[in-house]
Amino acid sequence: MKDDKLSTHEKTILDAAITDLVIANRILARENIIDNFGHVSVRHPLRDDRYLLSRSRSPANVTRTDIMEFTLDGELIGDDPRMPYSERHIHGAIYKDRPEVNAVTHHHARSILPFTMQSISLRPMFHMAAVIGKEVPTWESQDEFGDTNMLVDSMEMGHSLSRTLGQNTVALLRGHGCICVGPNVKAVCFVSMGLRDNAALIQQTMQLGAVTYLTDGEIEKTGSMLLGDMALARTWDYWTARAGFSGL
Amino acid sequence: MKDDKLSTHEKTILDAAITDLVIANRILARENIIDNFGHVSVRHPLRDDRYLLSRSRSPANVTRTDIMEFTLDGELIGDDPRMPYSERHIHGAIYKDRPEVNAVTHHHARSILPFTMQSISLRPMFHMAAVIGKEVPTWESQDEFGDTNMLVDSMEMGHSLSRTLGQNTVALLRGHGCICVGPNVKAVCFVSMGLRDNAALIQQTMQLGAVTYLTDGEIEKTGSMLLGDMALARTWDYWTARAGFSGL
Amino acid sequence: MKDDKLSTHEKTILDAAITDLVIANRILARENIIDNFGHVSVRHPLRDDRYLLSRSRSPANVTRTDIMEFTLDGELIGDDPRMPYSERHIHGAIYKDRPEVNAVTHHHARSILPFTMQSISLRPMFHMAAVIGKEVPTWESQDEFGDTNMLVDSMEMGHSLSRTLGQNTVALLRGHGCICVGPNVKAVCFVSMGLRDNAALIQQTMQLGAVTYLTDGEIEKTGSMLLGDMALARTWDYWTARAGFSGL
Amino acid sequence: MKDDKLSTHEKTILDAAITDLVIANRILARENIIDNFGHVSVRHPLRDDRYLLSRSRSPANVTRTDIMEFTLDGELIGDDPRMPYSERHIHGAIYKDRPEVNAVTHHHARSILPFTMQSISLRPMFHMAAVIGKEVPTWESQDEFGDTNMLVDSMEMGHSLSRTLGQNTVALLRGHGCICVGPNVKAVCFVSMGLRDNAALIQQTMQLGAVTYLTDGEIEKTGSMLLGDMALARTWDYWTARAGFSGL
Repeated sequence: MKDDKLSTHEKTILDAAITDLVIANRILARENIIDNFGHVSVRHPLRDDRYLLSRSRSPANVTRTDIMEFTLDGELIGDDPRMPYSERHIHGAIYKDRPEVNAVTHHHARSILPFTMQSISLRPMFHMAAVIGKEVPTWESQDEFGDTNMLVDSMEMGHSLSRTLGQNTVALLRGHGCICVGPNVKAVCFVSMGLRDNAALIQQTMQLGAVTYLTDGEIEKTGSMLLGDMALARTWDYWTARAGFSGL
Repeated sequence: MKDDKLSTHEKTILDAAITDLVIANRILARENIIDNFGHVSVRHPLRDDRYLLSRSRSPANVTRTDIMEFTLDGELIGDDPRMPYSERHIHGAIYKDRPEVNAVTHHHARSILPFTMQSISLRPMFHMAAVIGKEVPTWESQDEFGDTNMLVDSMEMGHSLSRTLGQNTVALLRGHGCICVGPNVKAVCFVSMGLRDNAALIQQTMQLGAVTYLTDGEIEKTGSMLLGDMALARTWDYWTARAGFSGL
Repeated sequence: MKDDKLSTHEKTILDAAITDLVIANRILARENIIDNFGHVSVRHPLRDDRYLLSRSRSPANVTRTDIMEFTLDGELIGDDPRMPYSERHIHGAIYKDRPEVNAVTHHHARSILPFTMQSISLRPMFHMAAVIGKEVPTWESQDEFGDTNMLVDSMEMGHSLSRTLGQNTVALLRGHGCICVGPNVKAVCFVSMGLRDNAALIQQTMQLGAVTYLTDGEIEKTGSMLLGDMALARTWDYWTARAGFSGL
Repeated sequence: MKDDKLSTHEKTILDAAITDLVIANRILARENIIDNFGHVSVRHPLRDDRYLLSRSRSPANVTRTDIMEFTLDGELIGDDPRMPYSERHIHGAIYKDRPEVNAVTHHHARSILPFTMQSISLRPMFHMAAVIGKEVPTWESQDEFGDTNMLVDSMEMGHSLSRTLGQNTVALLRGHGCICVGPNVKAVCFVSMGLRDNAALIQQTMQLGAVTYLTDGEIEKTGSMLLGDMALARTWDYWTARAGFSGL
């Protein structure tokens, strides 16, 4: 979407989305969700069939000029010689299958890795993890693709992963990491951190005894409260300050 | 309590209480007790039936102008369009039931979460945790309130939690976190950190063998020594410097 | 020892000892050996019957002007209205019993606490811990003193603890922490860190299987090599830079 | 190799190698791979029979002027009164035995220590660890050398260790640490971090159940992808920024 085709109002909306996306990159790096690898995208705020994602770069280093625009099939919009993430197809496939999803992260927070190869439930056991939803399925790349370089680097693989995700908020990738989705970029950051902490806490709790998971009702009520405007505003204010963000 | 009704001496006292409360917010954030959520309050230094608490904001970001004044029933004093914490009723209910308590924290330090769903005692096992007292009861929100959004957001829930706390210094909330109380704001910071470390150490010790808890006599003698003026002054000096505090 | 009684050469020696002691305070704070509580002392470089130790202050905040001089019985030299550490008697008792010891730390590094109540050996399992020596005894304050406030705050208690230490380099205090000794202040910092890491590693190893401790010969050869001038100079250079030390 | 014997082009190549080596020292320190001890070398870019390595100094503090040049037998090139690492023979022995190896680290990242005394496989269990290769052998210094000071401080010991390494990418040293090798300095940093994380994750996973290691095919495909130019450039960009590197 060329900038010169946009109205002033549209430019303002797009600019704000890019700003939040850059901030989200920095937040996820600061909070140890994403390190050298991993990424976060948002659906284009002006058209449902596009998404915004950095060029191939570690999120800690991402700036406004790194943000690229893609079709849901992963085609780059505009001329740009820089390399995109080869795993961008994760994002496009999910945006195709889940119209209500407007932000996606793919990361490898270490606490979740042990659970990608266990049948132990990652259902929320504490209130701040209610945002991850009741069930966390696991995708096994071997099932359809055999030995790979572990990257989800084609639309075919993206769609396979998206089928495993189904209507859930989080899916694990065996021996690799996870994907998290949300209605907006602030929410998907919250989901990513809730998942990280829930995995660490389940691991610790199992050393002591049985895990008491939240009930269905608790997950629903707590999850919708935490992803409401008020809670998200408070937490975004906190994460932004911690990320040392001082404007773009 | 409008400032213009206060004498110079009273203003000085109130100002000092607000300063310490802001510092306590920053200390608890710096020491990883409180993150995006959680809060700390003090009883109003000039009247027993009021308490001071930040508006709804992450403690790491709290400044003097964020501090609000409430009745023990959680009514905001004065006109202020900003949102208070919905869980402020924790504080009011405890101040009503425990006249000797002048500071309260509510937080979710991760090390304590596994213990909120176990019958393992969190009694102190090392001297710096003696400040948490001999017994740590757990509040189960399901018992009286069934499925909730996990927040203690009414006086009714606050009183229920306060009944579980009883005359103890700490109570856990299943799948949620804890509350800590103290005679002053420095003490309640110490209690919060002692609890955090005691939980982590009991978890580690149980991997090796049996836990040797402090005796009743050790808890009493060590606890009162650590909450004495001299020990609190030393530790407050340390925490304040670490929080990078350079005046309000 | 009044400064005006010292020759220029003696003043230089004393100044250097104080500088290193202040740096050691900061290093131990930076490396998470010591936090709000804990302390480090050195024997007076000009007379064997005195030691240097900060006034009662968290080591992270200690400066030159905080350093006090004591007799081995813990009597303060000179007029100084500031409070000394009540646990200074640990230091004096050890300096009396161990003429070759010139530096002592007392701290509560969390990794060692679980071992203060277990019969599991803290003997070195990796080369950098060889400096802690072959055996780590544990002192039980209940044996001679019953219920206390857990502080070693009299010469009687200091001597009791020193008897448990014997000719070893480290002793644990049940439910409290440890003491470490060394021929100089750089060595005692190394011992303190080696102990901290060895405890954490034994805990981790026991989750996997049996611990292979270093042999007697390995402990002797590695320990004396690591406490030699060359290794100590390299590590002091590293710790000093990390502590952000830029002169006194 | 005296600088005045080099052409301008050769000087540029050597300068770039030294720059990357200094950056690697700082990166490995920043990422907690190396602390007071440990080191990283590169083969001389202009001649196969030499390598570059800092003088005996903690990697966090290394600058350009600390870099020395050695023959593969560990002889220092040029006059330099400063002390080299006594364990430099690790590097020379490996460069002799493995012509395709151009960078070596020796470190003591804590997570690997428990595995140096267990028969548990450190084979990769997640994609970012694929770079460490299929097998991780362990060297036992007792076998050939009996009680030592644990240092690999002779060519004889270096060759013994290199024989254990064989054609693998990583070898453990019982009760000591590990060595990692790579085709270039960026790769060996990646290997070092992948090993550290893989050890921590296997330890965590074993608390929950069985470890699912990557297949041979996954290790081959993922490892070669991650050590390709594109992935290494992205991760080097990230590490360099985190290390706060602002030129030499």
